[in-house]
Amino acid sequence: MLWLTSPKNLNMTSSTPLLPAEFLAFLTENSDRFERELIEWLRIASISSDSSATENVHAAADWVKEKLASAGLRTESIATDGFPLIYAETPLPEPIDGKKATVALVYGHYDVQPPEPLDLWDSPPFEPVIRDGKIYARGATDDKGQVLTHVLAVAEWFASGRSLPIQIKLLIEGEEEVGSENLEKDLPELADKLACDVVVVSDSSQYAVDRPAITCGLRGIATYELFVKGPSHDLHSGSFGGAVKNPAMALCQLLSSMMDEDGKIAVDGFYDDVLPMPEIEREAWKQLGSDDAEFARSVGAEALAGEPGYTTDERRWGRPSLDINGLTSGHQGEGVKTVLPAKASAKFSCRLVPGQQPQRITQVIEEHLARHLPSGVWIELRPDHGAAAMLADATSPYTIAAAEAVESAFGVAPVMIREGGSIPILARFQEVLQCDVLLLGWGQNDDAAHSPNEKFSLADFHRGIHASAALWQAISKTEPAAA
Amino acid sequence: MLWLTSPKNLNMTSSTPLLPAEFLAFLTENSDRFERELIEWLRIASISSDSSATENVHAAADWVKEKLASAGLRTESIATDGFPLIYAETPLPEPIDGKKATVALVYGHYDVQPPEPLDLWDSPPFEPVIRDGKIYARGATDDKGQVLTHVLAVAEWFASGRSLPIQIKLLIEGEEEVGSENLEKDLPELADKLACDVVVVSDSSQYAVDRPAITCGLRGIATYELFVKGPSHDLHSGSFGGAVKNPAMALCQLLSSMMDEDGKIAVDGFYDDVLPMPEIEREAWKQLGSDDAEFARSVGAEALAGEPGYTTDERRWGRPSLDINGLTSGHQGEGVKTVLPAKASAKFSCRLVPGQQPQRITQVIEEHLARHLPSGVWIELRPDHGAAAMLADATSPYTIAAAEAVESAFGVAPVMIREGGSIPILARFQEVLQCDVLLLGWGQNDDAAHSPNEKFSLADFHRGIHASAALWQAISKTEPAAA
Repeated sequence: MLWLTSPKNLNMTSSTPLLPAEFLAFLTENSDRFERELIEWLRIASISSDSSATENVHAAADWVKEKLASAGLRTESIATDGFPLIYAETPLPEPIDGKKATVALVYGHYDVQPPEPLDLWDSPPFEPVIRDGKIYARGATDDKGQVLTHVLAVAEWFASGRSLPIQIKLLIEGEEEVGSENLEKDLPELADKLACDVVVVSDSSQYAVDRPAITCGLRGIATYELFVKGPSHDLHSGSFGGAVKNPAMALCQLLSSMMDEDGKIAVDGFYDDVLPMPEIEREAWKQLGSDDAEFARSVGAEALAGEPGYTTDERRWGRPSLDINGLTSGHQGEGVKTVLPAKASAKFSCRLVPGQQPQRITQVIEEHLARHLPSGVWIELRPDHGAAAMLADATSPYTIAAAEAVESAFGVAPVMIREGGSIPILARFQEVLQCDVLLLGWGQNDDAAHSPNEKFSLADFHRGIHASAALWQAISKTEPAAA
Repeated sequence: MLWLTSPKNLNMTSSTPLLPAEFLAFLTENSDRFERELIEWLRIASISSDSSATENVHAAADWVKEKLASAGLRTESIATDGFPLIYAETPLPEPIDGKKATVALVYGHYDVQPPEPLDLWDSPPFEPVIRDGKIYARGATDDKGQVLTHVLAVAEWFASGRSLPIQIKLLIEGEEEVGSENLEKDLPELADKLACDVVVVSDSSQYAVDRPAITCGLRGIATYELFVKGPSHDLHSGSFGGAVKNPAMALCQLLSSMMDEDGKIAVDGFYDDVLPMPEIEREAWKQLGSDDAEFARSVGAEALAGEPGYTTDERRWGRPSLDINGLTSGHQGEGVKTVLPAKASAKFSCRLVPGQQPQRITQVIEEHLARHLPSGVWIELRPDHGAAAMLADATSPYTIAAAEAVESAFGVAPVMIREGGSIPILARFQEVLQCDVLLLGWGQNDDAAHSPNEKFSLADFHRGIHASAALWQAISKTEPAAA
């Protein structure tokens, strides 16, 4: 097991199987039914960003509420200014030896990304099909297939009449794909209801096929749009070229001034607050044996390139980044139109690492742009949203318990990784609920979340159910973290 | 008169009025009809680049052919691989004292630019309206309104039964806005038919309102599209940002590497072949009294900016330029989509000055890109079309005759300028027909050619007709240039 701290140093109490054999047999016997239930949920086109899909989003909420309620869990739909939060909980076990039972909160979402571009799907996004052991549909891996592993594990165990050694709460929202704004806003007033020791999330990926992972960190984010305005209208580049500053060139100059040619971000102060990656984590990542040539091939790139002095995994997980997400200016259609465009704009975003705060990043970018302001144009920077990075406690008893549960289900110990993407609500959970976070991704990097032909491995789906059921037992055997 | 060489040094033979008073009265009496005819022609949406407008382009050709034929000119439609060339000619006068009559060729075009973006037009582009003495429509100034001055001057004079002292040929094409490729291709085999002493073109602007000009030079052009390809598909900027080279950033770096921040083009060899501007021309331009602040206001820019060491007119007319015409990459719609785009591209173009050849410019740009190739991406440069700059003979008798004709119509002597735009076919006329060129722009710099709300001053329209009619008389009074 590739781990920072040996489990031996922690309060692991037994090596007996985590789940009774008959429950494992029950899971196997019912695997077809579980797949049918997943298909049923995936058929509901719950696209939260599409105002014409409102009924579907509610239907997907109702579906999972009914699934939990029919298993006997206390269930409710919590209204927000947008789509409802589906909440369920198992009973709180009595204290044992005066020690309060652990409370875990499963967080996931029932909304999905828009499926466009539709013409790139091999089968319709909301007509799930199974090919080669994988289920293809929008939401398969992000997040219905993943969150359903926990819903099924808890519901089926509970429905079987067995008691749970800890209290499990489930919170499944419908606005994750549009920014979780309502959940974030309502979180303080829901703090008592959601109070927990650890939040469990399956909305990410394993390190590779048959290489399950526990994700101990996520990068934060800060997104921007930069506008450059030149003349009041597009000019003839012959009559005016050379005498009037070209806004598209000014934009390119501004954007390229923000990054050295070798990939280091060239904004003064950008790296000031970056906490160094712990050597032990860097060492663990190196042992993953990531192969740059293979990685480049997997994304179809000519080669990898990034900040000097860091490995690919370090660049993705432990170092901040700055990416242009879109460029717009002038004539973009067929053929030649020799205009000097009136304006140019770019969308860009930074991924942040522990230590960095989006507000401070906005400030150093504003200062940089002011220092590099080209003459002859106006510029405007519009920050959109921001969130700090999230670091889980890699040495918490929950993490160690999760490692044991994952190994029991997948037959191989998980590796410890981070993920370069952002789930802003998790840092808010840590802050408001004062809890640990467990990120147990059952997906794969090539699952095409947010892309055409999204998929989820059914083997991973079933191992996820097994791992979830085992997790609650494993957690109950650990000492809770000291308050 | 702001001029290189005093007209006194040349063979100007008289100061009698160029046109009979009764013809000038006729022009005044028929001015409403001329405007109605212009409106009729402008209503025809002859967009040569729009395949759905093919019938309109032919209709615009037929309209001008009919106008010339009904005046009694020998007229024909010359087929090309694209839209036809409309050709007309007046009879060749008998030699006087054994001296062959001068032959002038009027060149113009009946096709127009696409009108997009439509939402920026205050009135529909093909429903001409007159506001404040100006006619607003696509093609008003470029080039229907301008070429029609010559069509009307020749046709009305000829229809009145008067003889012309020189032969006038008219060539009005339908593919100027898409590069004049067919005319250029067919020009050698049309050389006998088009043989002339001077080509007369009105497809440019006066120096300012009530400051007519003779344009003695045009810049050349070289247009390109630059493609940068990164990963095979858009990637999640969280999972991959920092580890995979961003094609949009690579594009910005490449483009900004081609220009210093102060506006000098930073491509090695780019300026190698540039011929210096003659001091006498620079001096003449300085005396135009161009005001940078006023110029910036007229185009709505924050300020002017360009290559250090040159005035605004020198930058526009006598120095080469490089402009980005369009930028495209990634997410350009509403809101945030944090992709690392698979590709990025730019359209850009250079304006060339005497001495520079487009082939050589392509070569130095290719060498520059190869030297600055970012790692991790593929790039491709696609040259589109190119043409060398054109210089007219500012001391030719035709130029001097034109100055007299313009002064008689506008009431003020023209100034001598160049124009930064390109009419590639003119250098070809010079080369194939071995003729002089007269560029007599009746437009204004703010006429918005190629832009929404294109317009043309009706006063300039009528003065253009007068000037054209006077020009043929003035030319007949000069000695032809020595062979």
